[in-house]
Amino acid sequence: MTLNRSWVLARRPEGAVAVSDFEYREEWFIAPELAEGEILVRSRIFSCAPTIRNWLNAPGRSYRGSIGIGQPIRGMAAVEVLASRHPRFSQGIRVTAVAPWQDHAVLRPDEAAVPVTAIPDGMDTADAMTLYSPNSLTAYFGLFSVGEPKPGQTVLVSGAAGSVGMMVCQMARIAGCRVVAVAGGMEKCRWLEQACGVARAIDYRSADVARQLKAACPEGIDIFFDNVGGRILQDAIDRMVPHGRIVLCGQISAYDAGRPAAGPADMMKLVYGRIRMEGFVVGDFADRHEEAMANIRAWAGSGRLSCRVDLREGFMKLPSAFADLFAGRNKGTLLVSNPEERL
Amino acid sequence: MTLNRSWVLARRPEGAVAVSDFEYREEWFIAPELAEGEILVRSRIFSCAPTIRNWLNAPGRSYRGSIGIGQPIRGMAAVEVLASRHPRFSQGIRVTAVAPWQDHAVLRPDEAAVPVTAIPDGMDTADAMTLYSPNSLTAYFGLFSVGEPKPGQTVLVSGAAGSVGMMVCQMARIAGCRVVAVAGGMEKCRWLEQACGVARAIDYRSADVARQLKAACPEGIDIFFDNVGGRILQDAIDRMVPHGRIVLCGQISAYDAGRPAAGPADMMKLVYGRIRMEGFVVGDFADRHEEAMANIRAWAGSGRLSCRVDLREGFMKLPSAFADLFAGRNKGTLLVSNPEERL
Repeated sequence: MTLNRSWVLARRPEGAVAVSDFEYREEWFIAPELAEGEILVRSRIFSCAPTIRNWLNAPGRSYRGSIGIGQPIRGMAAVEVLASRHPRFSQGIRVTAVAPWQDHAVLRPDEAAVPVTAIPDGMDTADAMTLYSPNSLTAYFGLFSVGEPKPGQTVLVSGAAGSVGMMVCQMARIAGCRVVAVAGGMEKCRWLEQACGVARAIDYRSADVARQLKAACPEGIDIFFDNVGGRILQDAIDRMVPHGRIVLCGQISAYDAGRPAAGPADMMKLVYGRIRMEGFVVGDFADRHEEAMANIRAWAGSGRLSCRVDLREGFMKLPSAFADLFAGRNKGTLLVSNPEERL
Repeated sequence: MTLNRSWVLARRPEGAVAVSDFEYREEWFIAPELAEGEILVRSRIFSCAPTIRNWLNAPGRSYRGSIGIGQPIRGMAAVEVLASRHPRFSQGIRVTAVAPWQDHAVLRPDEAAVPVTAIPDGMDTADAMTLYSPNSLTAYFGLFSVGEPKPGQTVLVSGAAGSVGMMVCQMARIAGCRVVAVAGGMEKCRWLEQACGVARAIDYRSADVARQLKAACPEGIDIFFDNVGGRILQDAIDRMVPHGRIVLCGQISAYDAGRPAAGPADMMKLVYGRIRMEGFVVGDFADRHEEAMANIRAWAGSGRLSCRVDLREGFMKLPSAFADLFAGRNKGTLLVSNPEERL
């Protein structure tokens, strides 16, 4: 016999996410009868991504599907198919999917909002969750299709040490741009400058972000890739060149604040600056995933693109890892593995 | 002998513009010696445009050139050239230019930030200040180049009864779009529906703008042409279709508020809605003015495009007309004529 452990939502977080917002449950695992189109999976690695925070809000305040109280948390995961009644996902393969924070779960790939994707044979499971994940695609399409970088331009990236941000920094370098990064803490800033080719990384917790931004971007900012929102958005607008472009990817500064992220403080600067600000979601670029992945593979193969991974071991660590993410206590993409444990 | 009257800035407006913010001055007019490149002009018609309000702010709070205390107010005007030492502007012609609120002034066309433009022979002076003015070009490039309307789409226009707004409404109809307008007061709303082909005009002073907007745009908003900013921006975003476009033209709601216009209240809706928001200024499209004017002439000639003009007579009325503009007491583009008065 084996357990099916799960983490469910105990209460909706007020302000900062706390470990006590989650409740641990366990029951004996009994393999269910699968219906046509269903797959039974065993979780291997969970990704603690900021977007999960949105789903913890009440239905009216959540952007895409709220998790009910007492319901399992869900998020991107790499899982192994234990049994299948789906023609495309046979037993034994690994897939990435939005899955509940459980040991075992039944998924219905044809009804999934986020595509269930087979992990190619021979690909490391953690790589599939990082370098070859939707995070990299998000960075790719946001930077190249929305941002349209040109060699020699200055690209500012907020949340630069995060899963998407670090990819944007490296891809902007590949595009021949000068990259200025904003991240939380000196350790992350040093890493961005030393490992990601960033010309200058600014600690957003320091007192004089606007002044540092001015010094780091003497010729202005051509593209601002914003993962964070809030204060940094107006600081960036104040330094944008005419016809500059702001890529709206996320608003992590607001996810924990308990209220929506407000926009710029001075809209007239967008008018006179002819600034374009544009949101996007990676799902809109599904027909170009092959192209993006081919480039990402080539860049990774030649050592120009890599991912810093903060891998924690053990299903029990999911809530504390998730809280660490919002406190900035992670060093890279936060993954939690769920190895087999004999009880 | 004749007078040279002027209106100067007495003090910087706090909140709503008041007549007492302006001071009247007069002196005898003595024709000056012109230097090379200068023209001496006599004002004929002044345009009371919202943008002048920005120039009344202190230098740090003004977007493009602050007017000093005791300095003449300036704005777009149609003027007659009385004497010229400029090769392109000969005596007797009329030009449009940014000119001081004075009877007579010396202009230096080659140093002007806004181009000094000859009014073609035979063109009505008021037409040159309305239908064939930068307002129409602003509407044209903002709608067609930034907004990119397609037949059957829904276009929302704020400040719809204003100089730019009414042109946008009519041009969007010409583009085959359904137009929903927001304006101040029932009279303006009725006029928009009856004279501008607007499907539904909403009075922004009414209590339930968001609800009315929802009812008026059952299939969502494809393009929002925003002249106003503030509250209506978020209301519109809440109704935008995915990949909708927001054309940022002006922020008149903020010009009188004494502080900059803040952006949307919820930026995540731009991310998930893949909304593009873009500022522009008409000067960037200088190389396409001919094309735009040819279309505007053709549309006006076939009766599809016209301008509602609120013409006040007399130089002394400039301050009260300008205050009326911000109180919404104008009916159309506000012009103040300055006929010859023998003293």
